[in-house]
Amino acid sequence: MRISDLSRMSGVPIPTVKYYLREGLVPAGELTSPNQARYSEEHLQRLRLVRVLIEVGGLSIAAVKDVLAAVADESIAIPKLLQEVQYAMVSAQPREDPTWQQARDDVDAYLDGLGWQIAPDAPARNRLAEVLHGLRTLSGEPVLTDCFEPYAKVAQELAAGEIASLPGPDAPRSEIVVQVTVGIAVFESALTALRLLAEEDATARRYSPEG
Amino acid sequence: MRISDLSRMSGVPIPTVKYYLREGLVPAGELTSPNQARYSEEHLQRLRLVRVLIEVGGLSIAAVKDVLAAVADESIAIPKLLQEVQYAMVSAQPREDPTWQQARDDVDAYLDGLGWQIAPDAPARNRLAEVLHGLRTLSGEPVLTDCFEPYAKVAQELAAGEIASLPGPDAPRSEIVVQVTVGIAVFESALTALRLLAEEDATARRYSPEG
Repeated sequence: MRISDLSRMSGVPIPTVKYYLREGLVPAGELTSPNQARYSEEHLQRLRLVRVLIEVGGLSIAAVKDVLAAVADESIAIPKLLQEVQYAMVSAQPREDPTWQQARDDVDAYLDGLGWQIAPDAPARNRLAEVLHGLRTLSGEPVLTDCFEPYAKVAQELAAGEIASLPGPDAPRSEIVVQVTVGIAVFESALTALRLLAEEDATARRYSPEG
Repeated sequence: MRISDLSRMSGVPIPTVKYYLREGLVPAGELTSPNQARYSEEHLQRLRLVRVLIEVGGLSIAAVKDVLAAVADESIAIPKLLQEVQYAMVSAQPREDPTWQQARDDVDAYLDGLGWQIAPDAPARNRLAEVLHGLRTLSGEPVLTDCFEPYAKVAQELAAGEIASLPGPDAPRSEIVVQVTVGIAVFESALTALRLLAEEDATARRYSPEG
């Protein structure tokens, strides 16, 4: 198919398709003349994947590039790949501030207590430390990691269901990684939206005059 | 206190404090000389709130401005205010594409079935429609709204707990709204981080050679 077909079938405007091609997010087509290339079903599928990660998952171009590079690198084991997705979705840097460091230590102790198999340098640890540090700064009181408990519980419940529904360890690597990546990025959006709606409902019930 | 104290006690650099003052995110101090202003504990508290919403909650300056304006407007009922927070956190516009419209209709029918008290124009509805549309485009198959079920279940569970822990309807409005806003924005970050970590754990258990 030609670039115009690729655009029509994916719903992605031609200039955007060209941009993704230049950035290497979608591989080049097969040149049929100096100015024209032919694309296959695989190009279309890759274009749809890129589009969903950006539009729905909210990933940046750079983040999608990192994820796709990790997906293509067969030497990266699947759990390690998940860390690349984490890096793409949360970009939280450690801080030198001692109160921040204390929050990070508390987060590490909390996560140890959960017994999860996670890397010591998993970037989401910094994000949690930021949350704890922010809550402590705001309240001026010693906020404990207990406040994470309900969230950790549902996160574990959701993750167990999501990962169990994926193809088994013997499935083709590319199939697993695409499903993991899409599942994490896209359902993150769904969870955010549903939580906001559930908060609206719960608030209406508690604070509405009719409530 | 002076602007330098405000900066030191909040951990926000002076140029950033000045920027927030110019943008009206923090109200002006009381002028003590043409070049110097005095700030109170309330300024410090507001500065901390702004900082947490931006740094931890990931809100933009414009979004924080919208939220603070809604917080200040006493004529806005609390459930309505939640919608302002939603607008600040998800910016999803409807699309004209008929397959997108179909996804939005399906989302509305799904949410009706849940029986939640949510506004017909709640912006998170569009975000859910984007997710459903994205999944359908990617898989080329008719993806059903059933896929939202586990997320809706935990969202409702979390929201019930969060809203129940807030001050009751007779508490001062400003206290309720600050806690609602912080709770939604900040714990959103915590939930995202914990979900990513839980996915890392679940993936390690399923796909690791030792697993």
